[in-house]
Formats: sequence, C-alpha cells, structure tokens
Amino acid sequence: MTSAAPAPLDPAAGPVELTRQLCNIPSVSGDERAIADAVEAMLAAHAPHLTVMRDGDTIIARTELGRDRRVAIAGHLDTVPINENLPVQDRIDPETGAAMLWGRGTVDMKAGVAVQLVLAVELVAPTVDLTWVWYDHEEVASELSGLGRAMRQHPELFEADFAILGEPSNGTIEGGCNGTLRARIELHGTRAHSARSWMGRNAIHRAGELLERLAAFEPERVAVDGLEYREGLNAVRIEGGVAGNVIPDRCSFEVNYRFAPSRSTDEAEAFVRAFFADADVVEIVDLSPGARPGLEAPLAQRFVAAVGQTPTAKLGWTDVSRFSALGIPAVNFGPGNALLAHADDESVPVDQITAGAEALRAWLSGAI
Amino acid sequence: MTSAAPAPLDPAAGPVELTRQLCNIPSVSGDERAIADAVEAMLAAHAPHLTVMRDGDTIIARTELGRDRRVAIAGHLDTVPINENLPVQDRIDPETGAAMLWGRGTVDMKAGVAVQLVLAVELVAPTVDLTWVWYDHEEVASELSGLGRAMRQHPELFEADFAILGEPSNGTIEGGCNGTLRARIELHGTRAHSARSWMGRNAIHRAGELLERLAAFEPERVAVDGLEYREGLNAVRIEGGVAGNVIPDRCSFEVNYRFAPSRSTDEAEAFVRAFFADADVVEIVDLSPGARPGLEAPLAQRFVAAVGQTPTAKLGWTDVSRFSALGIPAVNFGPGNALLAHADDESVPVDQITAGAEALRAWLSGAI
Repeated sequence: MTSAAPAPLDPAAGPVELTRQLCNIPSVSGDERAIADAVEAMLAAHAPHLTVMRDGDTIIARTELGRDRRVAIAGHLDTVPINENLPVQDRIDPETGAAMLWGRGTVDMKAGVAVQLVLAVELVAPTVDLTWVWYDHEEVASELSGLGRAMRQHPELFEADFAILGEPSNGTIEGGCNGTLRARIELHGTRAHSARSWMGRNAIHRAGELLERLAAFEPERVAVDGLEYREGLNAVRIEGGVAGNVIPDRCSFEVNYRFAPSRSTDEAEAFVRAFFADADVVEIVDLSPGARPGLEAPLAQRFVAAVGQTPTAKLGWTDVSRFSALGIPAVNFGPGNALLAHADDESVPVDQITAGAEALRAWLSGAI
Repeated sequence: MTSAAPAPLDPAAGPVELTRQLCNIPSVSGDERAIADAVEAMLAAHAPHLTVMRDGDTIIARTELGRDRRVAIAGHLDTVPINENLPVQDRIDPETGAAMLWGRGTVDMKAGVAVQLVLAVELVAPTVDLTWVWYDHEEVASELSGLGRAMRQHPELFEADFAILGEPSNGTIEGGCNGTLRARIELHGTRAHSARSWMGRNAIHRAGELLERLAAFEPERVAVDGLEYREGLNAVRIEGGVAGNVIPDRCSFEVNYRFAPSRSTDEAEAFVRAFFADADVVEIVDLSPGARPGLEAPLAQRFVAAVGQTPTAKLGWTDVSRFSALGIPAVNFGPGNALLAHADDESVPVDQITAGAEALRAWLSGAI
C-alpha cells in the first residue's frame, strides 16, 4: 500500500468499520480524489447490479430495475480541515457510556456515507429503484458543490420521487431546511477631525440604532407541514473606521437571515430590505432557498414509520434544498449530532450507525 | 549643491521666502536631519547672540541677557508624508484672491517656523529673554516627540514664564488645548452556529445599545479662563465577527474623547469608564492632558494686544500641553488654517506670515 492507494474499502465489514475506513482517507474539500477512487473501486468490485457514472469526484450509481418509483440517496465525501483529530479512535462517551467513533468526519458525514455504501452493495432488489450519489465540495462555497454540478450536467440522472440526504440528524428524520440569506448593510457619514467632531457625521454611531433593532427583534417560529422552523436574524460581522482621530464616514455590517421554507427567496429579500430601509446600502451577498419538509407523500410516511421516531425540522441549510428545487421532496437522515459537525471533538454513537442502516434497509426492502 | 547639502537658509529674505526654502527641504518625520542641519548652520552664520544646543534633530537657541522674564517659542520641523505636493508653488486663492504658498508643510508648520527663525536672528535685544526651540517627530507617536525628549533631558533649558507654539491658528491666538483620550471598548458574547442563533449571545448586537448611547450623547461646551472648549466623544473604529454563519462572541470599538483642559486625565478616564460601565473591557490606549489657555498673565495680555484679535480656544491637542505640564502658560500662534493641516492642498496666506512676524516682533521689542 502506498499513500496514493489506500486499502480497499470493505462493505462486508459493516457500516461501523466502513465509517472508520472512510474517515481514515483524508478528504478535505478539494482533495476528494482518493476517496472517490476508493468508492468507485469498491462499487466495481462488489456492486455489479449498479450502473455507475463518475463526474469529477462525484459518483452516481443507479439500479435499473424498472420499478415505478425511484428514491435518490446522497451524501458528501468531503470534510472540513483536519485538526489533529485523525486517525479515528474508539472512545466511550463519559456521560452516557455509549461506544463512539471519534475523529474528523465521523459525524459530517462519513457514518452516513458508510450506511449508504453498505446498502448500495447489499440491496440488489429493492422495492423502488435507487439512485445513490456521493459527491465532492459540500463544505465550501455553494457554487463549487459537486452535487449542484452533477445536477446541472446530468439532470436525467436525478429524476426521482423522493430523496434522502445522509446529513447528521441524530438518527431521526429532519425534514426540509431553513433558507439562508446574507446581506451587507452600509451606513455613510462625513469625515472630520475628531477634535471638531461636530463638523462630521459619525457612520459608526448611525449603526447603533440598527444594531439595537436587531437585538430587539424576535424571530418567528413558523409551522410548515407540521414541523416547526425557528428563524434567526443576526449581525455576523462589522467593520468601520479610518484612524484614531477621524470621524468615520463608513460603517458596514453583514447580517445572516435564516428563514422558514414557507418563505420564498423574494420574500426573504424583501423582508431584509424593509428591515434596514434606513441604511444607505443593502446588498444581498448570498441567498439560498429553504426546502419544505416533504413528509406528506405516502413514500415518506412509510419511511417515517420504518425509522420509528417523530420527525423534526432541520434548521441549518443542507443540500435537501437542491432536491427540493428540482421538485423532489427530500429529508435529512443520518447518524450523529449536527451540533458536533466541524467540532474538533466530532464523534458519532456506534449504535446510531447500526440503527440507521437497519431502518433504511427495512424501508427499502419492504412494501414501500 | 548636492542632495545632502541644500542651499543655505537666508533669514534676510524674510519669512515668506524662508517658508518656501524650509518647505523645499523634505522633512517627513524621522528624516529631519537635513533641515535641522540647515537651521543650525543658519544660526551659526547669522545669530552669534544666541547660545545654541542640539539634541538629536532638536535645536534650542537661547538669549542670555539676564532679563527678569523668559518666553519660550517653539515649532516642529517635521511634516506628514509628501503626496505630490512639493516643491512649493505660488498660487492665488480662487475665492478670496489672496496670494498663497501651496504645498506640504506650508500650514503645518513651516510658515510658523520661518517667522520664528527670522525673529531669532533679528531680535538681538528683546525685552524678555527668549528660548527658541525647533524640534523633530511631532507628527508621529507622542513618545517619539523631540520636544518631550529635550524637556526630559535638559529641563533647565525649558524654564520660562510663558510659551508660544507656532502651530497654525489662522493668525490669531488659540489658547491652550483640549485633552485627548482613546479607549478600546470590548463586548463579549457566546459563539453559536447562526442556524441556531438562540444558543449563542451576539456580541455585535450588544454594541448597539452603547453606540446608541454615543449617538445620543451631547458633549459639553466648557468655559475655561474665558475661552470655550467644545468637547467630543466618538467611536472612531469598530470590528467584530468570526464567519458568515457564526454568532460572534466578540465586538470591540475604539472611542476618542476630547475633553476640556479644566478636566484632569483622571477625571477624563473616570468619565469614560462610567459611560461604558456595562462593557466587558474598557482599556485606555492613549491619554494626553489638555492645557489651560494661560491668558491671565500680564505677559499674555500684552501679547493679545499686539496681535489685536480676540483669542479663541484650541480644540485639537498640541504641544502647548507639554509646556502646561511644566507649569508654563502656553498658547498657539501661527499662520495658516489648521483645517488644512495634513491636507494635500495645504496652503497658507502670504499676508498671515507677514502679519504674524510683525505682531511677534512688536510684542517682543516693546514694553512687555
């Protein structure tokens, strides 16, 4: 074995061991070739029943059984940067006594990918056709997303009646996701020497009223298809100033608005523009729609039954939004606590990996 | 003439021509050797009645006539950086039609230095003893000041009953100066993912209330010895933020407090600490006392009469504060509008240079 060729992935070892193997192939965003190669080689060796297509470091593997419905199941291969938290370690959670896999990627989202890979190999005759997708560049700017690229280049491969994204959801189903908007708010003033401050207009002082308004604002909790989406409106950055003796003529801050999936992107933008109507500039710098939970469909209802826990709302933005934009209802379902994603002490309960594989297997093997 | 040896300064040419000659010797802070050499050479050639001492690029030249009173008259030799505004040009003010000298240093403060040099050479028998001081490093950090250094190393040379600083004062007497304090105000919070903002505490939002307080604050106008000092309290810089999807746990801003010379530095600090009592950190980063106008003394009263205009309060901080700290009443008196100091279109009315020299000559030659 050389550094360019990691040991082959072994789906027969089960999803827990496969999580360990996947995490130990470093795969920080932009450096996913080795892990995509390993996944492609594993499918070639163990999954002759799948039609496999590769686009960059994104792999799409489909059953072609002629079923009347199709489910897409997707997970990203990349992680945020490593911070002395690889290779993976077996640990015991000191509070719960649970067996854990600890290390970068265990939660976000190699455990979810491992569950998917094991089932992709195992399920040669699922009751629906399946489209498995493993993709690159999820942890970086939206326009780099391997999933977005593959959807644009091969839209015919993404036709489906339902989609599951393996993002960490603590083993339950998290429906849809909030949308997210970032805007830059700019206030202008007039420079003056600070010894004669009354000759200027202080742009930083002007920001006070707007920040007070933000501090006093109470975001809504919005029920969408039976799930509650909690919103947020926050300043995330601020800057301003010229020199220690100059009244500043400019202050700008950036806000992040997380909005329920019942609001359109146009509505979100209109809300933010109205909220800061007295600013000199309101520039939208990032805007991604939310996704409705998509749990009304009978297909989804039986998945909920197989998982056996009450679904909740996904608050962070995830790629379910990309499926939702194609008209495909989509939910998040994966092992691990999303609050630990990107944390240096990222770790996933072993039991959630096993239970996740069992629920998905039961649903896809039964009378969906 | 080589670049290392500019043409000798000629005091007989008068203060306007001498202003031109001084400006055309580049003397940005830290690079004052050539101009100090030129001043020293001029005094050696033309002012045998003065006892001259040099400390670095600061020159102290004293009469030793045994008069019962002594007046110190000082000006700095350095300028802020040149910005394509040298050599000096003769221009006409388009609004007033007045003849102007235009270029870096004309206002701040080569015209004042030129008036002083002409009179230092000319006044061989003034009615008070005189201590002339021309010094380096005024336009940079206070601890680099050549005047401060010379006062520490040669305190005996600075004994005086009154002091005049040639800073631009539009040809009138500007008494004393405001003090200045800069403080860094820091607010803390708790980080959280912005998709779950209610789990954090937004430090930038906390700044809103304090900035509103600043915006609403009405600084005082304080009468000191008959002159009105207008104060100011302003945020001059602000920064905060971690990333576009993180609730920020820190926001800090810097305020500049300009306070009347009737307040001590301890009082100024106590005021700022009380004003921001609810901040997590209030760090004083710069603090210089003001200077009372010093216009009650009979010596000063006769100087006011010689200038013939109503004195006003100096609002910016100047080195009069250093004399004031030694117990020496001090005022600003120099040609040029301080609002043009450091401006790229710095220019001084020729008439103010001539009038300034005449007023100072009349006062120092008459029955003070």
